[in-house]
Amino acid sequence: MNNEFKAISSLFQQRVPFVHALTTLANGDDASVHQIPGGMELVISTDAAVSGVHWPEDMPLDIAAQRAVNAALSDLAAMGAEASWIWLAIMAKDASCLETMSNGIVRACLDFNIELAGGDTVSSPTNSINVTVAGLLPANTAMKRSAALPGDEIWLVGDLGLSALGLEQWFSGLHQGSCVPAFTTITPLLKKGRQLRELGIKCCMDISDGLMQDAGHIASASQLSLCIEQEKLEQLASYQQLLEATDKNSALQHLLNGGEDYALLFTAPTSSRNQLLKLGAAAIGSCKKGEGVKLMFRGSEAEYSSKGFDHFA
Amino acid sequence: MNNEFKAISSLFQQRVPFVHALTTLANGDDASVHQIPGGMELVISTDAAVSGVHWPEDMPLDIAAQRAVNAALSDLAAMGAEASWIWLAIMAKDASCLETMSNGIVRACLDFNIELAGGDTVSSPTNSINVTVAGLLPANTAMKRSAALPGDEIWLVGDLGLSALGLEQWFSGLHQGSCVPAFTTITPLLKKGRQLRELGIKCCMDISDGLMQDAGHIASASQLSLCIEQEKLEQLASYQQLLEATDKNSALQHLLNGGEDYALLFTAPTSSRNQLLKLGAAAIGSCKKGEGVKLMFRGSEAEYSSKGFDHFA
Repeated sequence: MNNEFKAISSLFQQRVPFVHALTTLANGDDASVHQIPGGMELVISTDAAVSGVHWPEDMPLDIAAQRAVNAALSDLAAMGAEASWIWLAIMAKDASCLETMSNGIVRACLDFNIELAGGDTVSSPTNSINVTVAGLLPANTAMKRSAALPGDEIWLVGDLGLSALGLEQWFSGLHQGSCVPAFTTITPLLKKGRQLRELGIKCCMDISDGLMQDAGHIASASQLSLCIEQEKLEQLASYQQLLEATDKNSALQHLLNGGEDYALLFTAPTSSRNQLLKLGAAAIGSCKKGEGVKLMFRGSEAEYSSKGFDHFA
Repeated sequence: MNNEFKAISSLFQQRVPFVHALTTLANGDDASVHQIPGGMELVISTDAAVSGVHWPEDMPLDIAAQRAVNAALSDLAAMGAEASWIWLAIMAKDASCLETMSNGIVRACLDFNIELAGGDTVSSPTNSINVTVAGLLPANTAMKRSAALPGDEIWLVGDLGLSALGLEQWFSGLHQGSCVPAFTTITPLLKKGRQLRELGIKCCMDISDGLMQDAGHIASASQLSLCIEQEKLEQLASYQQLLEATDKNSALQHLLNGGEDYALLFTAPTSSRNQLLKLGAAAIGSCKKGEGVKLMFRGSEAEYSSKGFDHFA
């Protein structure tokens, strides 16, 4: 057995013993095989993360790898799915980098009882990781970007803007900055996502590229306009946390455009209000006929700069 | 809409119009959603390919990307599955590299009527592509590495050694070398894989790292010994092709250790012999009690050097 296969066994298979009840065959064959029970649907997403692009090159690789898995799981949260399986592709500079990344990956799998069903480990000049995640949900209950309705309120659960500010703190040398943990440690809101789906929420997404840019995806997919109210954003706990580290204008910019907090953005009829407040969600605006995303302040449309992340700008 | 989302739409979604009948939701949401009909199982595999590692840096990126998709599809062929969906993660140096890679990806999807169900496009200092593939097969029919039995014959369908020699030709400047197309153009043997599964073949894998190394996986998973006969390898059409470009010793080494031809290696009871010959398969040895892989020549065990590819050697 060569080093590569030994490494896969010792770094992953022996450390993530969880096997999903519906798995027929996993790890060590050409592919993994899974049964899907009647009435359920399978939800699959894939996400890439690259050193120097998705995380600073001087950030520990185990933290970066754990982040990458949790970011991918956030997509399942946004659909309302259970997280069941992951398939990894790890592109590592050397065996030491591979081992360090494996530590973070194993932590993420154990945190959520996820089966590591397969993968590929290869050498690369650039440390990168690609995570494919899959989960199940009852047929026709997936929360989609295209299901917002005029009259729906817009809701948010999770932090906003802290991760982007944490990354800036890291780059400025403040590795212990107040917001750095918001960047280094992603918590995919899997339980909240399931709760929203069980409450009958139809439209949800996770915020990875910034509130205003991602809200634009719901506006476009649902063919309506999202009006976000600045006063409500300023009532978020995240805003207070941002103000402890930066000024008002910068705090607002981080709320509007900061990515990678992996909060859930969703819409719901006003009849759901009390249940959503109990879940800790915050209403931040409303859906109307029209198109695009508007920022409202004191009853009027406000100017804002949208600069969500664009890999190929 | 920023450049990244425009690119995904114009480079992929508009060019791969095929939507699988079981897809509920794909492309443009947080994840794709799929139904699985009763009695079927889902087969999933993921493969990474990195510039300078999996393909020479001076090879056109569209060819490299098409190779990467076809190599991933080969894993479905080895299981006997239909190829239904792919999810891509493309790590590209710039928008031009992304566009060139998209051309190869689109060709591969159109060749096999595969739905491009989702993905991620990100910037990276190193051009890389990760392909996750999924397909369906009837429950309990997946061809596994662990299902070889003592007394089974060992069979091969597809080329052997040509791709490795083609890569050497490329590196030596012979970009039009006789074996170069075997490296640049992978044909995943999806139809052969399905035919083998329908014939009741239980044990199969694709050869990506070299015959002897990969045969070792079957030996280990099935807890038996694989005896490969050199005389039968020398009867393969691939051996004649290799001899046109290299000497006898080198030709044999390429048969034994050359990777990335994506031939299917499988085992079958002798009762299947006539059907397998009709499929164009070649018998190359037999399974016995014991362990490991042996090379047999004139009735005795022969020495051979095993040096299949190891990313972290």
